[in-house]
Amino acid sequence: MIRTAIIGAAGLSGQELIRILSHHPEASLDVVTSTKYAGQRVGDVFPQFSRSNLTFQPNDVALNGAAKDKMDLAFLAIPNQASLDIAPKLLKQGIKVIDLSGVFRLKNVAVFEQRYALKQTAPDALKEAAFGLPEAYRELIRAARLVANPGCYPTGALIGLLPLGELAAQLAAPPIIDAKSGVSGAGGRVEDESTNFLSVNENFKAYKVFSHQHQPEIEQVLEGTTPYRAAKQGAVIFTPHLLPIARGIFSTIYLCFDRPMPRGEMWTAFADFAAREPFVKLLPDGKMAELAMVQGNNDCVISLHPDETGKNWVVCTVIDNLLKGASGQAVQNMNLMFGLEETAGLV
Amino acid sequence: MIRTAIIGAAGLSGQELIRILSHHPEASLDVVTSTKYAGQRVGDVFPQFSRSNLTFQPNDVALNGAAKDKMDLAFLAIPNQASLDIAPKLLKQGIKVIDLSGVFRLKNVAVFEQRYALKQTAPDALKEAAFGLPEAYRELIRAARLVANPGCYPTGALIGLLPLGELAAQLAAPPIIDAKSGVSGAGGRVEDESTNFLSVNENFKAYKVFSHQHQPEIEQVLEGTTPYRAAKQGAVIFTPHLLPIARGIFSTIYLCFDRPMPRGEMWTAFADFAAREPFVKLLPDGKMAELAMVQGNNDCVISLHPDETGKNWVVCTVIDNLLKGASGQAVQNMNLMFGLEETAGLV
Amino acid sequence: MIRTAIIGAAGLSGQELIRILSHHPEASLDVVTSTKYAGQRVGDVFPQFSRSNLTFQPNDVALNGAAKDKMDLAFLAIPNQASLDIAPKLLKQGIKVIDLSGVFRLKNVAVFEQRYALKQTAPDALKEAAFGLPEAYRELIRAARLVANPGCYPTGALIGLLPLGELAAQLAAPPIIDAKSGVSGAGGRVEDESTNFLSVNENFKAYKVFSHQHQPEIEQVLEGTTPYRAAKQGAVIFTPHLLPIARGIFSTIYLCFDRPMPRGEMWTAFADFAAREPFVKLLPDGKMAELAMVQGNNDCVISLHPDETGKNWVVCTVIDNLLKGASGQAVQNMNLMFGLEETAGLV
Amino acid sequence: MIRTAIIGAAGLSGQELIRILSHHPEASLDVVTSTKYAGQRVGDVFPQFSRSNLTFQPNDVALNGAAKDKMDLAFLAIPNQASLDIAPKLLKQGIKVIDLSGVFRLKNVAVFEQRYALKQTAPDALKEAAFGLPEAYRELIRAARLVANPGCYPTGALIGLLPLGELAAQLAAPPIIDAKSGVSGAGGRVEDESTNFLSVNENFKAYKVFSHQHQPEIEQVLEGTTPYRAAKQGAVIFTPHLLPIARGIFSTIYLCFDRPMPRGEMWTAFADFAAREPFVKLLPDGKMAELAMVQGNNDCVISLHPDETGKNWVVCTVIDNLLKGASGQAVQNMNLMFGLEETAGLV
Repeated sequence: MIRTAIIGAAGLSGQELIRILSHHPEASLDVVTSTKYAGQRVGDVFPQFSRSNLTFQPNDVALNGAAKDKMDLAFLAIPNQASLDIAPKLLKQGIKVIDLSGVFRLKNVAVFEQRYALKQTAPDALKEAAFGLPEAYRELIRAARLVANPGCYPTGALIGLLPLGELAAQLAAPPIIDAKSGVSGAGGRVEDESTNFLSVNENFKAYKVFSHQHQPEIEQVLEGTTPYRAAKQGAVIFTPHLLPIARGIFSTIYLCFDRPMPRGEMWTAFADFAAREPFVKLLPDGKMAELAMVQGNNDCVISLHPDETGKNWVVCTVIDNLLKGASGQAVQNMNLMFGLEETAGLV
Repeated sequence: MIRTAIIGAAGLSGQELIRILSHHPEASLDVVTSTKYAGQRVGDVFPQFSRSNLTFQPNDVALNGAAKDKMDLAFLAIPNQASLDIAPKLLKQGIKVIDLSGVFRLKNVAVFEQRYALKQTAPDALKEAAFGLPEAYRELIRAARLVANPGCYPTGALIGLLPLGELAAQLAAPPIIDAKSGVSGAGGRVEDESTNFLSVNENFKAYKVFSHQHQPEIEQVLEGTTPYRAAKQGAVIFTPHLLPIARGIFSTIYLCFDRPMPRGEMWTAFADFAAREPFVKLLPDGKMAELAMVQGNNDCVISLHPDETGKNWVVCTVIDNLLKGASGQAVQNMNLMFGLEETAGLV
Repeated sequence: MIRTAIIGAAGLSGQELIRILSHHPEASLDVVTSTKYAGQRVGDVFPQFSRSNLTFQPNDVALNGAAKDKMDLAFLAIPNQASLDIAPKLLKQGIKVIDLSGVFRLKNVAVFEQRYALKQTAPDALKEAAFGLPEAYRELIRAARLVANPGCYPTGALIGLLPLGELAAQLAAPPIIDAKSGVSGAGGRVEDESTNFLSVNENFKAYKVFSHQHQPEIEQVLEGTTPYRAAKQGAVIFTPHLLPIARGIFSTIYLCFDRPMPRGEMWTAFADFAAREPFVKLLPDGKMAELAMVQGNNDCVISLHPDETGKNWVVCTVIDNLLKGASGQAVQNMNLMFGLEETAGLV
Repeated sequence: MIRTAIIGAAGLSGQELIRILSHHPEASLDVVTSTKYAGQRVGDVFPQFSRSNLTFQPNDVALNGAAKDKMDLAFLAIPNQASLDIAPKLLKQGIKVIDLSGVFRLKNVAVFEQRYALKQTAPDALKEAAFGLPEAYRELIRAARLVANPGCYPTGALIGLLPLGELAAQLAAPPIIDAKSGVSGAGGRVEDESTNFLSVNENFKAYKVFSHQHQPEIEQVLEGTTPYRAAKQGAVIFTPHLLPIARGIFSTIYLCFDRPMPRGEMWTAFADFAAREPFVKLLPDGKMAELAMVQGNNDCVISLHPDETGKNWVVCTVIDNLLKGASGQAVQNMNLMFGLEETAGLV
């Protein structure tokens, strides 16, 4: 059994990790930490885990010399600055790390520092970090000590774009990604007016238009993996919106090609991709992806919609932002890092 | 035209007052205040009022010597302590006051100070305050300089109980009021976790069981107006719950009688009450009150449900907590205080 | 007073018309019809209209010889086929008509018959019908006997595109309109599984991708009013989505230009448009349109978002689909047709 | 491995059964039926089960002679009449049955036929049926061939009442159960207007007041298990309401006693009950049950709230109507019937 720890287990992603790891066939959950609840039993704080015997410990349990005796892997579900501080110390102790914050994703330090308004103080860790999207970097993840778990929006967007492969070279314009997220993926339980029930319920809006930190994350992966880059400099147009629901991200992706794309060619590209990927599903022609298909599971479901000319395509993808967009994907990455079945504990 | 001011116009009740008073045929809205938005145009803060020419002023505009030149009546939609401070000063200037806070409702100072954790520092104002439930105290309201606008829960509960009149003497047990409120009536836009979208959405819970400050408010009115008091000491059992919706209060009221109550007798009592009251509607037998019937209007809709024996009755009432439960009722009270048609501006 | 009738007054648009016309200063509501509720009092069917003295009549009240004695104008809020049948008969009696169905909007009969799967059996009425978007066709509406009230999606999309005026000539690609609608604008109360609570709640999906009947409606207006047409053949890309809320349409419109558009030029174009139009509001730079701004009013609120290069712009528009997207706009059109103040009864 | 079948697997309860049985450590899911989807792969109809290899068969697969070769146990998640028809035939083949319909719950045939408007055509099956509430009838369930799985409302209500045990003798009045259910427990996906999104969203109402078929079900169990019966004839007052959420039942139970009940006595009674029961949790004093605690799990969580006098108590219980209120409880019953760990597959 792989011994795991969740640093920051009381947040939304942390709770999902508790739930998954409590039933994982080849990993045990040995340590959970929480600044707010240190000293309290997990089951007392969260009645849905009433059968757990764990007690929240303070975060620094991961930092004392004995941590290595308790854990082979630590999931970090803590704020950005905390991840920057803690991850290198865990690595130094020989503990593998899957970081759910944003600090080890962007290789371009200048872009990172501008979008996150944070100093990149862990350049060595950044250098070795694998970007944890198995659909793009499976082999790097297998070999990694540190995995930067992707953002939720990039996961939904990229799984709709990566299947293009060589076809991306024929895009006539930057892909437009119109993304809609439930509240848990877009600000979450922050105690401010913007996520108050009365602000969100029966409402809808865009936010951070042309300025969201996930845009360069999408572009970085496209540049590294598709021929899209050479021709178009990797730019995408990305608009996040806030849905009045708890969880799920729906991405409507607009692709305009230089020439009509034969239906068969596009379907084959996506179908081949889905056939290779354990958590990617392509719907048959005429069916529409919807959030209900993925809430509670680790799948990304795709539907494809060409116009009459074949020059314009809409790709719709849906994920559960807390699973494939966060904790589910983190466990998928753990499975890869430790040579387990990739789907273990997730289906 | 009656010249009115809203002190604290940027909150939920204040916004409803702006909306109603902007179209009232016999009142003008001349002054709006807000600590947060002082100096900003109302239409810039709230696009739905983009046609308004008003600018938010600081609250103390009501306190300088010249206030009387600008307003005949002030609506106070401010926190409890602020109402305690400001109301007496307005009265002294000869300005009538309708207070939407809780501080002038409970005549029993000890009960008030316990439930509100506040010192009653305005005993003279309290003494002269009329409780602003027209269905119980219309004549007092007409004559009042200061009206304590009722709480939202008491309004929904009392309009389901007052029609009993003499029949209340035959109750075998305290009425049980199981009340369910939308978020705007139960904590509102407070910036804490309890009203965060993720805490409320797809959830339901009770709160303040046996300790809510509206329970003695209901009892005080029952004691003063029905024979219920002598026999039963005015007690009611009251449980508030939080509905995952924006607005509306549904009260399920359980009445157990000493003897079978003839259907005709009960229906007549309620129908007579509704016939007298411009904002009370009794549904015909077999129809069920629901929140959609009152959202956006000042009505209280009632449905009646006897069991087979006639000893047990369920009375359901619905109101919009921001209208009949707050700002609509406040304007109804204004109409009474100034001798206008009671429904002016409200239908 | 203008005497009005609502044919089909029990649906969602019909109910909004009842509400507005009950308080219109220069129009009276004299006739309401409903196949389902004929013979019942309006107030008995809809408690929120309990003060109404009207009784639902059968639809054919509009067709007997005496209709002209009762109404100057009929609003048709009935199914497509019924509008095709009834509108010509009303016109023949000298009664003006505002039709809320889709049958008199598309001038191209072939396109109409394909998208609506209906035969165009009223070509003369079609020929004289004015498209009821005041922001595009105010003078035609003033002179019209028959107004085809626009679809809700076209209203939200077009008010985001028309302000471009001459600038539209510099678009490098078709505008992409990613639109999200509440249930009342997207299928409504149809008694099938797709709008069941469990199908919609906590869910989100696109529908009718590249096949919605509102796409040619948007294109027809753009072709007729902007230089966009000559260069680009009037095509737009339009994707409707279903939001888990009751009302409101949010349109995210992507504009890609041939060259960087100076911020001042774009803002001026939109600000001038908004200044001319009584129901169009442009938000200041940095503010984001959201549905809460327009629910319950007849406004269309716009926010503008350029990228760093100025070549890509996002325009967000919000409307209430039952008001500016249906019944509110219909009353705006009535006001124009009868020479009233354009905003009468609507603010 | 126990071989199981789900007859009627495409409904809400059926889908939950598929989900649970797909991961049960000691049961296999071998047969799923659906009239609507017969012949289609489960994974094609429900993308969340895309890994399933099962194909929907017609319901009568359970009736041909060979059924016994395929299944040891059949879950019936079909309409009432269908259960009456099929259950006896399965029993005759030696197949055990857990029936999720209402037809084998009420022992009093007259009451059954009145509340369900159905003829009781399977009296022998009824006679042998155990009522599947483990908290009341664990030993009967262990020995049963046919289990009548309880209604969702009775489950939530009874788990709040059964812990009283002998204390029930001191109730001064019938318990009042004010219950609030999500849509999946209260009508579900029926294709009519009452569960349309626009009818439910932002709304709330009671229904079937004093006439719901679950009232005699609650009373039957109370009569059979507590001293409550002798003194009070087993009557309860029960009002169901419809919450605008997908799943969960919140029961607010009002208990009025003849005398003040010592806090210790009541807490001990409930704590002892919870300690014995694997799926019952009692919250500590001061904590409030809420639906979020049980959505997605098989627990019933209880909170207790006395008034100052100790004569009046409010008991709040929460369950997930599709799990502890339906399919989870059905699997709990299966575990008992086949001698497995009671919690197998459920935690």
